[in-house]
Amino acid sequence: MVKKKIAIVGATGMVGRAFLRVLEDYNMDKYDYSLYASARSVGTSLTFFGKEYLVKQLDEGVFDEGFDIALFSAGGNISERFAPIAAKKGTVVIDNSSRWRMDPKVPLVVPEVNPDDINLNEGVIANPNCSTIQAVVALSPIYKKYGIKRIVYSTYQSVSGAGKEGWMDLENGIYSYVDGKDRSLMKFSYPIFNNCIPHIDEFLDNGYTKEEIKMVNETRKILHDDSIAITATTVRVPVFSAHSESINLELKQPYKTDDIKNLLSVSPGIKVIDDPNHNLYPLASEATGKDDVYVGRIRRDESISNGLNIWVVSDNIRKGAASNAVQIAKIILSKNS
Amino acid sequence: MVKKKIAIVGATGMVGRAFLRVLEDYNMDKYDYSLYASARSVGTSLTFFGKEYLVKQLDEGVFDEGFDIALFSAGGNISERFAPIAAKKGTVVIDNSSRWRMDPKVPLVVPEVNPDDINLNEGVIANPNCSTIQAVVALSPIYKKYGIKRIVYSTYQSVSGAGKEGWMDLENGIYSYVDGKDRSLMKFSYPIFNNCIPHIDEFLDNGYTKEEIKMVNETRKILHDDSIAITATTVRVPVFSAHSESINLELKQPYKTDDIKNLLSVSPGIKVIDDPNHNLYPLASEATGKDDVYVGRIRRDESISNGLNIWVVSDNIRKGAASNAVQIAKIILSKNS
Repeated sequence: MVKKKIAIVGATGMVGRAFLRVLEDYNMDKYDYSLYASARSVGTSLTFFGKEYLVKQLDEGVFDEGFDIALFSAGGNISERFAPIAAKKGTVVIDNSSRWRMDPKVPLVVPEVNPDDINLNEGVIANPNCSTIQAVVALSPIYKKYGIKRIVYSTYQSVSGAGKEGWMDLENGIYSYVDGKDRSLMKFSYPIFNNCIPHIDEFLDNGYTKEEIKMVNETRKILHDDSIAITATTVRVPVFSAHSESINLELKQPYKTDDIKNLLSVSPGIKVIDDPNHNLYPLASEATGKDDVYVGRIRRDESISNGLNIWVVSDNIRKGAASNAVQIAKIILSKNS
Repeated sequence: MVKKKIAIVGATGMVGRAFLRVLEDYNMDKYDYSLYASARSVGTSLTFFGKEYLVKQLDEGVFDEGFDIALFSAGGNISERFAPIAAKKGTVVIDNSSRWRMDPKVPLVVPEVNPDDINLNEGVIANPNCSTIQAVVALSPIYKKYGIKRIVYSTYQSVSGAGKEGWMDLENGIYSYVDGKDRSLMKFSYPIFNNCIPHIDEFLDNGYTKEEIKMVNETRKILHDDSIAITATTVRVPVFSAHSESINLELKQPYKTDDIKNLLSVSPGIKVIDDPNHNLYPLASEATGKDDVYVGRIRRDESISNGLNIWVVSDNIRKGAASNAVQIAKIILSKNS
């Protein structure tokens, strides 16, 4: 039998390298892989399933090879240019950039939430924003059982969401604190070490950042409900990995807190950690390197009818990017096999 | 003329030392000061207005000296025992602990918000919780002009709010990251370096922490309005100084965003930093060491009528504790002079 072929585009980036680790963790070794990156990274050698892979340069011709799946994480411009080319050649592109997410013809998929949307694809499937993925995994069971009227998001996002340069800004800040030597910033407008920066992605005219608007629009698209009222404040914090989120909800139906805990406990992709008497609640340090979405601090918000507060933590590079994309790929590959 | 006498109780603690710096900054050198601490710190020498002060042991007898003002920051147990003794001797105690804050006979004061409540004191005035002080400074002008129906607080609180041991936990975590040597935690249940911990003060039976309930109750008491609906999620972040807060509001009256910006710009104790086009917004790194409450990211929350999001940052040891207490003392001293 001919092996199915998978292309990884942007293989040397932070999410690209995570694609490789997740594919290894999921034992997806029966495929024929090709790794691509920009000219700058061509020739880099990456270890993958115990073999050395040479990273090749991406150009329009590569999609003549007839890939079944292409995992893209190389920024919006690369996705804009190459995803349609790949799709035209019969490849299903799973794209981690924001470029196609709000295109009405492109499904935006979180496998625990809207797996059937995969079937609607015309060659491109968008992987949602990291902060949205973990939120909707936690919210979807609640939405389906009780309905959600309104969401107020406040996020605590790690620097890995800003790529290698974001990571270096925090690491350099730590070293500068210890040795007293200044190091210049590579990514952020201000030092992220010892600071909280309420600014992720660009500002829009309405005073919101693109990251905040992504959370509003993508949550509605994934849950298929434009009537949900949503607002967001997104903040970068000095943490390397895993985003934390304070989520305030107004549900449509009355609920019991224990029922919510039980519901989330049996829902896919969720791990409930919620035992205040033993100081147990979700933490970035625990979620790092895992695929689950951790939910805790589940408690009634008495300030409103059917109000609910939850605290949601997940690894933004794993479930928030690479693992979610690979999980989509797995579903497609299992259907076509 | 006889100098007025001021006692500083808990002078060697983090807030105690800040009392001294704030009194110096405010040029309050015309008073006769005595510094007290627990037996453990007695004999410590502190430089204050260029003089060396020997820290003396606190006992019941010291209040026979007839202090005009006593600034307390030595924990709830010390305040519970000694504040009534001092008050009985005619001293006005300004207490930074949580012990007396919700006592109906004790005014809870933020000078920019409810200075007249000082006149209601029967010998004890409570200094509010750090995260509440900065919030109400920002909210009070909005409350007075438009009314506030509901508040959703999510906080990003620095380790200095947990005292010297909290500070050491972060500092030790930084050094451990660099040199690879483990150091044991002194204050927090989990490493605060590279983490966000959604747990400040003790947990209550309803799943909230005491810190969260303090924000609910103290906001209402300071604004004199028990009808305000409030919920809170309070989180410790790996930042040394200054708390940041994501505050979502539902106002009673319609507003224009520019009017809110103008209103806050001319309100006491507030510095508006809000120019997204130039990447200007409040930051912990900017607020540290200052007394102002910094407000920015002022923008309409479209998810609800009269919704408003703001981002509020202030130094929790200065305005959130020492400066607020000294500002109360100044008002009392100016009245009696």
